[in-house]
Amino acid sequence: MPVTPAPAERLQRYAQLAVRVGANVQPGQEVFLRADLEHAPIAEAIAEEAYRAGAFRVTVEFQDARVRRSALEHAPLEALTSAPEWMLARLRELDEAGAALISLTGNADPHAFDGLPAERVSAVPLNLAQESRRVTLGGRVTWTILAAPNPGWAGAVFGEPDVERLWAAVGVAMRLDEDDVVAAWREQHRKLSGRAGALTALGLDAVRYRGEGTDLTVGLVPGCVWTGGGLTRDDGLTYMPNLPTEEVFTSPDRSRADGTIRLTRPLVMPRAGAVVEGLVVEFAGGRIVDVTADSGVDLVRAELDTDEGARSLGEVSLVDGSSRVRAAGVVFHDTLFDENAGCHVAWGQAFPFAVAGGMDKSSEQLAALGLNTSSVHTDVVVGGPGVDVDGILPDGGVVPIIVDDRWAPEFA
Amino acid sequence: MPVTPAPAERLQRYAQLAVRVGANVQPGQEVFLRADLEHAPIAEAIAEEAYRAGAFRVTVEFQDARVRRSALEHAPLEALTSAPEWMLARLRELDEAGAALISLTGNADPHAFDGLPAERVSAVPLNLAQESRRVTLGGRVTWTILAAPNPGWAGAVFGEPDVERLWAAVGVAMRLDEDDVVAAWREQHRKLSGRAGALTALGLDAVRYRGEGTDLTVGLVPGCVWTGGGLTRDDGLTYMPNLPTEEVFTSPDRSRADGTIRLTRPLVMPRAGAVVEGLVVEFAGGRIVDVTADSGVDLVRAELDTDEGARSLGEVSLVDGSSRVRAAGVVFHDTLFDENAGCHVAWGQAFPFAVAGGMDKSSEQLAALGLNTSSVHTDVVVGGPGVDVDGILPDGGVVPIIVDDRWAPEFA
Repeated sequence: MPVTPAPAERLQRYAQLAVRVGANVQPGQEVFLRADLEHAPIAEAIAEEAYRAGAFRVTVEFQDARVRRSALEHAPLEALTSAPEWMLARLRELDEAGAALISLTGNADPHAFDGLPAERVSAVPLNLAQESRRVTLGGRVTWTILAAPNPGWAGAVFGEPDVERLWAAVGVAMRLDEDDVVAAWREQHRKLSGRAGALTALGLDAVRYRGEGTDLTVGLVPGCVWTGGGLTRDDGLTYMPNLPTEEVFTSPDRSRADGTIRLTRPLVMPRAGAVVEGLVVEFAGGRIVDVTADSGVDLVRAELDTDEGARSLGEVSLVDGSSRVRAAGVVFHDTLFDENAGCHVAWGQAFPFAVAGGMDKSSEQLAALGLNTSSVHTDVVVGGPGVDVDGILPDGGVVPIIVDDRWAPEFA
Repeated sequence: MPVTPAPAERLQRYAQLAVRVGANVQPGQEVFLRADLEHAPIAEAIAEEAYRAGAFRVTVEFQDARVRRSALEHAPLEALTSAPEWMLARLRELDEAGAALISLTGNADPHAFDGLPAERVSAVPLNLAQESRRVTLGGRVTWTILAAPNPGWAGAVFGEPDVERLWAAVGVAMRLDEDDVVAAWREQHRKLSGRAGALTALGLDAVRYRGEGTDLTVGLVPGCVWTGGGLTRDDGLTYMPNLPTEEVFTSPDRSRADGTIRLTRPLVMPRAGAVVEGLVVEFAGGRIVDVTADSGVDLVRAELDTDEGARSLGEVSLVDGSSRVRAAGVVFHDTLFDENAGCHVAWGQAFPFAVAGGMDKSSEQLAALGLNTSSVHTDVVVGGPGVDVDGILPDGGVVPIIVDDRWAPEFA
């Protein structure tokens, strides 16, 4: 195991990572940072680092889960499902300014909304969600999401608020043990984007995941684009929307998935904070037709009934055994980390950038190309030792991509 | 001394006071709450109470002094002296919606900006300050400022972060010992606004403060309006902009002040966190012509040199010995409390509502009527045992207003 850096040093490296790699803050840029109250010390370090990088202004918006609970309990539904106009204006202004948007996750209280009606807890301001989607996909801003260790999150992971132990695991996953964390992540970006380019160039028709209890073939759409590492703003500035990231991924044809997967990691249902163990999912003709599990299967079934698209795949993703998240050796109870522990698929919403020019296409156009639409997106890990992934060419030829949990040499 | 209520009870009463009396939140109203991170538990209690009062939505904006310090240290001056457009849009939207605005003070770290250049620390976004002034004086919103006890503030007051001791003092000053705190403050509003009305009706030409070391006569402008207790929105809804409040006050003729005052309480210079003891101020022809003190006189002299209006009075105010702030028996290091310990005057900016129709007049029109203009406004307490205040009528007749630290019977 690498040596964990001292608290001040790791916080500094974390802030550098957020600012210099994740959002790639440039001199004169506006920075907007969303954090929970419990993330304050980390938000402060990021704000300081952003100013050091030359930010014009750093606005930090703190969320308070207790205030949110009061709203969920008392506010009229209309107040929960629509944002005020100034909030939309703020997003538009940040977009026009080409701002850097940084969001901190790391749920400090998974039980904050216990006992409240599910339809109120899941209420979102649709006008804001739509505008936010437009801005993050619009190619003018840079944005990144990363998770800030805190006692509550540590409690969910370890059963006790051992934040030092969580920092140690997060430090491994986020390469905070590297003296030059920025260079380490630039190298990771180079490696993942290289793999993504190679896969896109292959023009695969399908991918097949095989392992103990798993044999699933998923069809891809013609001209499918794989993504890995970072994204690029219209003006060429690269950034990394998720930190950490170990994956190369795309969205498949929602009508072509056949076979079975047996999860190699527990699935944490984010809203309920509940853990699903031993999940087995069966697909036929692109749809999930059966699920079984050792525990928590009802939560999965309820989610699959959310809407028409919930039972079809929105993502196929490739991660090998060199993953730093895998090396950290814990279930993080945070998808940002957990999906990066191994190869995975996700049912639900697809990514518009999985087809060339997809950012400029309407939802209807993307659906016509075969991409899935849903209000859910749940990643489930099937990768690990003994797992192979093959690419299948339009002529039926087979290209080994991951062989026994390692990228095949031509992609390494 | 009254019995201090238990922590949960006093927090509940404090929140009721903020919501039901201060901002007077109505069903369906938008509420905007500004707080420091250190005020979070109190902000949460106020948000909950506002929703219970029927608020449509409560938006809480948290300020972080460490993030502010980073900005003061690194940001271009332009970013410190102008606010982004969406912030102005937010204020306009709150104004149009007739929102309730609640601000929490109670400085958790008087040393947060130590060592930074004064001109950066005092930089304010002028566009926002102007819009904020327009909105708070515009008659469409209700607003209130109150102070939230926290360990840092307790440290400034007592030399140790004894927040329980601070809560006890705040509880006395804010009448949290009253079982029906809302009724107690409505009664206080009735009493203070009655006194203000009686003083306005008198049509005084001047007031004269007399006590040990103090004999100051201050001229008033024709048609001067006294204010006490609360303000009234254009639609008739009353609210209390400052909590606690014990004063009845107006703004004088800036060219007529002659005599001397000897402060009866120490003056805490807010920015420096420094205490000025034994301050004596001499006035001639409306202007401060000399100051002496046992300690800290340089800070006062520097402030008096800020601008042309800093040496003239912007406020004369009447408070008697029944003041709950006086009863609390501590120097709060917060003007919101300390000015309410006794009769006081303030040098610097005047209140536009000190003349009839003043809210609709320009700064030039207000100045032409005799009101003062300055970027500073510093309250200094001269009241206490043995102090008398007389009103002087245009014909030279004298009306005793405060006699030996008590309101004269016709004003009680």
